[in-house]
Amino acid sequence: MSVATIKFYIREGLLPPPTLKTGRTMGYYDQAYLERLRLIRRLREEHFMPLRAIRLLLEERGDRPLSADESALLARVGPKVMHRLDPGSEAPGQGPLTRAQVIERFGLGDDQLELLRELGLLGDERGEHFSAMDLELLAALDRADKAGLSRDRFPMEGLGHYVELLGELAKREVRHFSHFATTSGIQGDELGRLAESATELVEPIVTVIRRKLILRAIRAELGETQAPGIPSTTKQENEP
Amino acid sequence: MSVATIKFYIREGLLPPPTLKTGRTMGYYDQAYLERLRLIRRLREEHFMPLRAIRLLLEERGDRPLSADESALLARVGPKVMHRLDPGSEAPGQGPLTRAQVIERFGLGDDQLELLRELGLLGDERGEHFSAMDLELLAALDRADKAGLSRDRFPMEGLGHYVELLGELAKREVRHFSHFATTSGIQGDELGRLAESATELVEPIVTVIRRKLILRAIRAELGETQAPGIPSTTKQENEP
Repeated sequence: MSVATIKFYIREGLLPPPTLKTGRTMGYYDQAYLERLRLIRRLREEHFMPLRAIRLLLEERGDRPLSADESALLARVGPKVMHRLDPGSEAPGQGPLTRAQVIERFGLGDDQLELLRELGLLGDERGEHFSAMDLELLAALDRADKAGLSRDRFPMEGLGHYVELLGELAKREVRHFSHFATTSGIQGDELGRLAESATELVEPIVTVIRRKLILRAIRAELGETQAPGIPSTTKQENEP
Repeated sequence: MSVATIKFYIREGLLPPPTLKTGRTMGYYDQAYLERLRLIRRLREEHFMPLRAIRLLLEERGDRPLSADESALLARVGPKVMHRLDPGSEAPGQGPLTRAQVIERFGLGDDQLELLRELGLLGDERGEHFSAMDLELLAALDRADKAGLSRDRFPMEGLGHYVELLGELAKREVRHFSHFATTSGIQGDELGRLAESATELVEPIVTVIRRKLILRAIRAELGETQAPGIPSTTKQENEP
């Protein structure tokens, strides 16, 4: 990368000044700095992301603890949101399902059920109680299986990708909501209602964005089969 | 990390042997090795992921090119999938919408429309043509806005998180499908039908997993408010 690019990123507030500046033309940078620089490059070159989006993204990733106000807000609405997402009841209209019943109903091997539990996707920590949300996941997996994305062809370990990336996304979503709900001063009943419905409101947005990005990923693998005359990448800012 | 843990990961096939082995008790490891080790630790400690899922995940991340067979498969089904995801038609029952009409109908600022285009979420590269998929995204954003997740409270730059993480997910999904559709030898019509429906079949799975992980993220921020008597983390294997 050129010095001009690094200076440009510093000027735009994406990077702090060098870790240790030792002269007019000399500076030392630490490992974290290098990783930040690599991430910026990846976001620019793979996702063509504009600088203002990268700036927010850099602020919200990582493990910065929530501020006192953000924590207080989350303590207030968190339990309601959790209850809304998973009331914890067993399947409606029937008693609790045992592990054996779950295995039988969804044609899972004991081993596969165990994998889902280990991935944190199912059941309580002991894998004995199954909530309505658990049954919803099992039903969705079962439909995919019957439609041809079957477990003997596509190993269930692949769900690890979803756990890793949607897990990171979920963490950022919770932080993002806590931060901007705090700064915009949403209060009382409105705050509670909004927090409870936020997850569902974002679902159709996630669905369309994922489709769009799968389309983009296929296009990238096929090696640029875009309409002629349209450049495949455009720099949005005057980056050196 | 202890030497025993690293040896355990090597034995389990998660890590290759040291980059340079210089004696019975001495070895050198390069930067990529260290990053791989860090990732494994994060997947174990943050996501409690079992080793067999981590193994697959490590194989499928990164930029390993597709094999010749996988590329051939993708070349065959890719264009159909892209057409299914976005037929490219304008809004049904009406002519193409102009940029001005889109801005007016969805109450967007010109600047916000530009951000969506820069994030690669909307329109063609010039931001002049809007497909049915584009209008679906705009409608979903509009509903969230009207329900209180409004653009003046929650900056649209936050969509960068979705582009980064769902973009990485999409890349892996395309590779995962190409790989296992190839190895399981799915052929002809069945292959085409399955590829075309795969994205939609996975949507409800993504939705439930995201809910589950938001629940987990809130619980983590609130600092372990789990039911008493249930340990919050359990080691699934006998890891040293």
